[in-house]
Amino acid sequence: MRRLCVHTITTKPLSLEECLVEFPKRGVSGITIWRQALEGRDLGAVARQTREAGLDVVSLCRGGFFPAATATGRQAAIDDNLKAIEQAHAIGAPLIVLVCGAVPGQPLVESRKQITDGIAAVLPAAEKAGVKLAIEPLHPMYADDRSAVNTMRQAHEICDALGSPKSVGIAVDVYHVWWDPELKEQIDHAGKTGRLHAFHICDWRTPTIDLLNDRGLMGEGCINIREISDWVDATGFTGHREVEIFSNRLWSGDQREFLEKIAASYAQLYA
Amino acid sequence: MRRLCVHTITTKPLSLEECLVEFPKRGVSGITIWRQALEGRDLGAVARQTREAGLDVVSLCRGGFFPAATATGRQAAIDDNLKAIEQAHAIGAPLIVLVCGAVPGQPLVESRKQITDGIAAVLPAAEKAGVKLAIEPLHPMYADDRSAVNTMRQAHEICDALGSPKSVGIAVDVYHVWWDPELKEQIDHAGKTGRLHAFHICDWRTPTIDLLNDRGLMGEGCINIREISDWVDATGFTGHREVEIFSNRLWSGDQREFLEKIAASYAQLYA
Repeated sequence: MRRLCVHTITTKPLSLEECLVEFPKRGVSGITIWRQALEGRDLGAVARQTREAGLDVVSLCRGGFFPAATATGRQAAIDDNLKAIEQAHAIGAPLIVLVCGAVPGQPLVESRKQITDGIAAVLPAAEKAGVKLAIEPLHPMYADDRSAVNTMRQAHEICDALGSPKSVGIAVDVYHVWWDPELKEQIDHAGKTGRLHAFHICDWRTPTIDLLNDRGLMGEGCINIREISDWVDATGFTGHREVEIFSNRLWSGDQREFLEKIAASYAQLYA
Repeated sequence: MRRLCVHTITTKPLSLEECLVEFPKRGVSGITIWRQALEGRDLGAVARQTREAGLDVVSLCRGGFFPAATATGRQAAIDDNLKAIEQAHAIGAPLIVLVCGAVPGQPLVESRKQITDGIAAVLPAAEKAGVKLAIEPLHPMYADDRSAVNTMRQAHEICDALGSPKSVGIAVDVYHVWWDPELKEQIDHAGKTGRLHAFHICDWRTPTIDLLNDRGLMGEGCINIREISDWVDATGFTGHREVEIFSNRLWSGDQREFLEKIAASYAQLYA
């Protein structure tokens, strides 16, 4: 259980304060904090309270969304990512996960160029703050408006284009990449290049009835989570396994029971 | 307009007989017939009526769904595909589109092997009947239960594994492959290998509210349809451009008006 992390969005109905109470009760050792959970809060206090709860802050979710139709829009995205870097530093998060962005109708190649430029623009501030950045390839069903980076190969290409800075890596989320025939090879490559920054788990339900908010708890779907997890570990990765689930169905139930189920399914997965 | 084909499923509320009346009125020159439209009909009569309507039968949709958890299930799939080959021959369809299939939880590599074996099993019958087969790579969001073939590269690999028989090729549907960074290269390769058997068009809406039945009419979404179409034509492809749209929204309206819109958006796309 020492590698179990839960995202605040996974138990969205709970406040951050409730997460800090409830997560440790189920043996959760890490927390990835979504930015909306920080709204109206003193960031220094969040850092202290999280430490006092015995939780590692694994990541801040999320930066990114760099592409925009106008230069003004792209600068606004850069400014927002600079703010995220300040927030991550203030709460003691060592990593920001980037949902890279896309503009419907804009060529994906152009969006990937804007993503590369955006990361380059915020990289000095991230390095100064000691905050790493993780490009999260998103499932191709989000290529219209959420991310033009849809495979690990493309994430590697952006890292390459940036000159392979140590602070830019990849967040592997099984939901997004499980179908990719190159997955094992690309995970291996991420290990060899020091780019494997984060590992997210959940499951893919059949049928999936909503493109955004119908993810499954581990075991409820078809993803070979344990196999992918073993590939990740084989690279030498020892970081947290982060449970990131968006689910209208699971959010509608009792969140404390849901946390029990998360802990149980995690324990079964890694038994 | 001489290359405009419409799938019977696109105007699902219309009977096959209504399609044969309504399609030609809007300048549609080709028809791809879905198997459910053949239910309870005399296939020889369908062939004759379609010819009399002045419509080319472009394809029969759909065969495939080869993977199954049991040998009995896989044999049933082969039998069903043999039946589809007979149907295609009887209605004068030169091609069957294969939605290849997948079994939730079964490794995709195993499903692709079963797909390859399934195609090999029906290939002699297809060749004897003069019916070609087209592997249609499906979007990765269908990798759980509809197709373990999610990229053109994988479709090519199956053609290679079969020894590149002339009668097995690929159906390119922009909805499934538009996001693929290798798309142009793989279309070029399909041209060079004589595998480009069919070309389907529609659009990707933002937001997409249903994984199956929320496709857009050309122009309603973000896909670079004309660019992809030009890549297809650059290979020497001169076949029909097939409008295949599944949409609860568009099916709920007047289908004759919908056909007018299809013809208008097609004319605009290829102006």
